[in-house]
Amino acid sequence: MAEEPPIRRLALVGLGLIGSSVARGARQFGVAREIVAIDADPAVRERVSALGLADRVTGDAGEGVSEADLVLLCVPVGAAGAVAEAIRGRMKPGAVLSDVGSVKGSVVAAVTPHLSEGVVFVPGHPVAGTEYSGPDAGFSTLFSGRWCILTPPEDAPEVAVARVRALWEGLGAIVETMTPEHHDLVLAITSHVPHLIAYNIVGTAADLEEVTQSEVIKFSAGGFRDFTRIAASDPTMWRDVFLSNRDAVLEMLGRFNEDLSALARAIRWGDGEALHALFTRTRAIRRGIVAMGQETAEADFGRARPGPRGEG
Amino acid sequence: MAEEPPIRRLALVGLGLIGSSVARGARQFGVAREIVAIDADPAVRERVSALGLADRVTGDAGEGVSEADLVLLCVPVGAAGAVAEAIRGRMKPGAVLSDVGSVKGSVVAAVTPHLSEGVVFVPGHPVAGTEYSGPDAGFSTLFSGRWCILTPPEDAPEVAVARVRALWEGLGAIVETMTPEHHDLVLAITSHVPHLIAYNIVGTAADLEEVTQSEVIKFSAGGFRDFTRIAASDPTMWRDVFLSNRDAVLEMLGRFNEDLSALARAIRWGDGEALHALFTRTRAIRRGIVAMGQETAEADFGRARPGPRGEG
Repeated sequence: MAEEPPIRRLALVGLGLIGSSVARGARQFGVAREIVAIDADPAVRERVSALGLADRVTGDAGEGVSEADLVLLCVPVGAAGAVAEAIRGRMKPGAVLSDVGSVKGSVVAAVTPHLSEGVVFVPGHPVAGTEYSGPDAGFSTLFSGRWCILTPPEDAPEVAVARVRALWEGLGAIVETMTPEHHDLVLAITSHVPHLIAYNIVGTAADLEEVTQSEVIKFSAGGFRDFTRIAASDPTMWRDVFLSNRDAVLEMLGRFNEDLSALARAIRWGDGEALHALFTRTRAIRRGIVAMGQETAEADFGRARPGPRGEG
Repeated sequence: MAEEPPIRRLALVGLGLIGSSVARGARQFGVAREIVAIDADPAVRERVSALGLADRVTGDAGEGVSEADLVLLCVPVGAAGAVAEAIRGRMKPGAVLSDVGSVKGSVVAAVTPHLSEGVVFVPGHPVAGTEYSGPDAGFSTLFSGRWCILTPPEDAPEVAVARVRALWEGLGAIVETMTPEHHDLVLAITSHVPHLIAYNIVGTAADLEEVTQSEVIKFSAGGFRDFTRIAASDPTMWRDVFLSNRDAVLEMLGRFNEDLSALARAIRWGDGEALHALFTRTRAIRRGIVAMGQETAEADFGRARPGPRGEG
């Protein structure tokens, strides 16, 4: 006999890449008995219905969350406060509210004032994603073997944290808890600044006069194309991330710039030893990432090789 | 009956990732009748022999190139001049010398003084590679569907250029010609600066006090891990690239920095419109790269997904 799912009714607000992946996974891995999909966009609701991702699809957030045991906000971080306000007083006592935002401090500040009596907010962030957006882009194994960070308030009841943990572990993720402040610092360097410099170099390359856009595209296999993947991520989500995690991003960007100035100086003055030393040290980090199952060891990410003699 | 290979004897100097991939491809696709492998490192020669990559393996460059119709230098760009000097006067008249270096101006300057009468130098650069190094890392389809840039001198005999072109087209590459100066500018933005900032951010992340190395590794799926691939490339090759293409790299890095300062300012002052506009524009470049067959359209580069619920 199948085990009873750890969550009875799961309400998802926002059915983009993340929300639709949670919906698919929650059903496939038996994490929730019933799934309610809430989205303000009629086109998204239509796709969610057509794909059969939820038991019920609605545009009315207040009504959609009313019987849920767990409500998960899967909207850009800049929209979390407005959704919390819209569902104010509509969640049932004992229910848990969570989210998937890439920034935690600002979301806690925006959501907390709108919490109803008896509802606990356990913020979360699954560190997973792809460069695609929307309900068609999701898939059930997006969170498999990836970390999910929870930043519960110190006085959060254990049962509330356990419910959110059960969701993510049911989806195959590894759960870790920390403070919102530390989360925002860690993600600034592992995710936000990498996205910023990827967006930036793609913009720089597009604006050159001496090198044509066609040349940038043709010769991108020399390294540039790796950056274009994350620079193709959802613009609204990422605008919100940078505006919401300003201080940590600028702090980490400052460090990046200091180091880059030192590298430029080594190049200008022909300091080959300094360059070689750094380039040797950075190899070890990748080995660590591969060893921890967060990256494939296959050459070139295991990319398919298109072209006349391609095998892919 | 099989067609006669376009090259009778091909001598490869340096059997790393690129040289060993040329050897494998030249044999598999019938590009050369005979392959001579030349490497100064006895351990590499042993692997090349064990893998059966060449008809003859030697450590004596002068002897190895003596009967070749085409000699291809597959060594770090900083070593090209020394190899050219070592084989001075040993290539036969009518033979063609080429290379695979990621920088062209400095290689032309280093090699040209050592050319023998009757030998033409047609510099080349296949824009392809992986993060792995050495003779075991090569594979025959590395150049399939990738561009190879040739920078022949204006007075180069057509027959000499045609021989080098035949090699690369035989390996599945698309050949384009340009000046060494333009090559170095194009590659500075499509390859050299991307590598530099990848090496840099991996170094910055490794040096933080507030965020542990273990955290950087665990949460790398947020974007950081994409950078670690190219930051795992061969340190000697890349040291030489930066020292050899200093001016173009510093020029492109200057533009990158100006743009990054503007982005940082937009973040500091909360200019969400400027951020959104850039993040939207950069998506188009990736679509162009995918459309031109230089990148997979699969989410996440089509990476295998390890982990408890992974399908990969």
